[in-house]
Amino acid sequence: MKILISSTGLYIPPRIEKNSDIAPRIGKSEDWIETKSGVVERRVSDIDVDVMGAIAGKKALGDNNRPDLIINASGVPKQAIPDTSIFFQKEMGFEGIPSFSIHSTCLSFITAFHTAGSLISSNTYKKILIISSDKGTIGRNFNEPESASLLGDGAAAVLVEPNKGKTNSKLIYFDMMTWPSGSELTEVRGGGTNKHPQDANTKMSDNLFTMDGPAIYKIARKHVYRMMLKALKSTGLSQNDIDWVVPHQASGKAVEAYISGGKFAKEKVINIVGKYGNCVAASLPMALTIAIQEKRVKRGDIVLLIGTGAGLSAACALIRY
Amino acid sequence: MKILISSTGLYIPPRIEKNSDIAPRIGKSEDWIETKSGVVERRVSDIDVDVMGAIAGKKALGDNNRPDLIINASGVPKQAIPDTSIFFQKEMGFEGIPSFSIHSTCLSFITAFHTAGSLISSNTYKKILIISSDKGTIGRNFNEPESASLLGDGAAAVLVEPNKGKTNSKLIYFDMMTWPSGSELTEVRGGGTNKHPQDANTKMSDNLFTMDGPAIYKIARKHVYRMMLKALKSTGLSQNDIDWVVPHQASGKAVEAYISGGKFAKEKVINIVGKYGNCVAASLPMALTIAIQEKRVKRGDIVLLIGTGAGLSAACALIRY
Repeated sequence: MKILISSTGLYIPPRIEKNSDIAPRIGKSEDWIETKSGVVERRVSDIDVDVMGAIAGKKALGDNNRPDLIINASGVPKQAIPDTSIFFQKEMGFEGIPSFSIHSTCLSFITAFHTAGSLISSNTYKKILIISSDKGTIGRNFNEPESASLLGDGAAAVLVEPNKGKTNSKLIYFDMMTWPSGSELTEVRGGGTNKHPQDANTKMSDNLFTMDGPAIYKIARKHVYRMMLKALKSTGLSQNDIDWVVPHQASGKAVEAYISGGKFAKEKVINIVGKYGNCVAASLPMALTIAIQEKRVKRGDIVLLIGTGAGLSAACALIRY
Repeated sequence: MKILISSTGLYIPPRIEKNSDIAPRIGKSEDWIETKSGVVERRVSDIDVDVMGAIAGKKALGDNNRPDLIINASGVPKQAIPDTSIFFQKEMGFEGIPSFSIHSTCLSFITAFHTAGSLISSNTYKKILIISSDKGTIGRNFNEPESASLLGDGAAAVLVEPNKGKTNSKLIYFDMMTWPSGSELTEVRGGGTNKHPQDANTKMSDNLFTMDGPAIYKIARKHVYRMMLKALKSTGLSQNDIDWVVPHQASGKAVEAYISGGKFAKEKVINIVGKYGNCVAASLPMALTIAIQEKRVKRGDIVLLIGTGAGLSAACALIRY
């Protein structure tokens, strides 16, 4: 697909929470947190997901730039109804722009990016703003030390347009798979019809994030490895041809697996989990945006976006930036 | 887009709730309910949205038919994480099929259908199962008689494939617009980061459906009318060329507006709101599926799918079935 990420935007909440801040709340040492999660500090947002996402969206748009579609690609909504994309639009001061959500938890950005490519290829839209904004810290369960220490807040946005030939940017390859046998490994059981607040059996912990990190790592590592090999084989590329790997920042261990298991050079794998934690769906576009803004990822580079999400799902997109 | 709805499936919960059942709970007469909402009876599901949707999905698939993508196009999820599409897949007994959600509240089906067309046109997928399943009765606010009497439960699914030329089926036209100035007219404020269950200020009513029906009708009627005229003008068609109008079943008044305001012949407008209520995102594909299964909508017919949703949004798709 001949598409181009024409610009990017970021919102990093200013409030830093260090491991020394969270350690007493989860009854673990700072060392334990860093070893288990790979996180040294994370951001905690004092504003809600819509305001966070709108700041990132406005930065991506710049001045006087009106998208013709807004896609929300976040992990958790602002509220059940209406759709979060509407609140992004409201905060950005627009009216009349079509908007909806694409949701596949932590993989929402990859899925939305590929779908945006498809919508552009079919000439429906010409300027699609994708926003991922997550505030996972609001749903931390401090009785579950590993997942509680992992989560952080942040937002990122990218503007996707048709590539009219100035660059050789494109979406080269996309793949996604979902295995419902892993549906109980990562959950927020509330928020819908399942554990409704009116149901007397619903517990407060049903509304908090729960994750079996070690079990996911074991299964996900295998699935992602196979998907990565398939992507390389299908495109005739090798690890050396990939300039950058931008993984979902699930945990320190999950990001490092692309080096130890995936055989990518360490300096090619974008790692922001130590500084920002796991920002759910926002993690991947945040890592991409930071790498672009730091002038590491440059026009023409081959970039592999890859990760796993609740489901259990795995997805990847190979792009020429 | 050369796509084909190759089959459809339906799940109608067996339990009927008549106006005489709900009248005492909302302190209104049966006549008041029928006049205000246009609903005579609705179904109340004793199974959750994933099981409902999987039954409709399996019916659409038939035997030995495995889709290569499952899209959840419902109004409210089963739970915040993971995505509802995963639970559909689990209930249908599949593993490894990519799946995600497209959400635009009551318009989720139209948005998902158009997106599926785009994904098929770009050759990413060849057999896409779209499932809309909603259990709005779980979130009724009995202190808000009009919206409480409107909601009903149900599910529908359609299988979308490339049209390889046996029929002249296609997606002729699509349009969508969203006006965030109407974001407070239809809400469930809970279910996300906004009114989190851990927040002491969150009230039980924040988790229930609230709607300002008269205000929406006034604004929506105008927006939908303009969108409908634009669709006709863009395709060179007149009201007489449209064989069937399948509207979102927002209320009796909203459906009748396509006759009084839209100038479509009464017998062309599919109306199931009296029998099933407003089934949120499932309403539109339920109406389409019922009309197909009753052999009213036939191959080659021109069908206008149209409606409004929370946001406030409006969308339409013109198809040759």
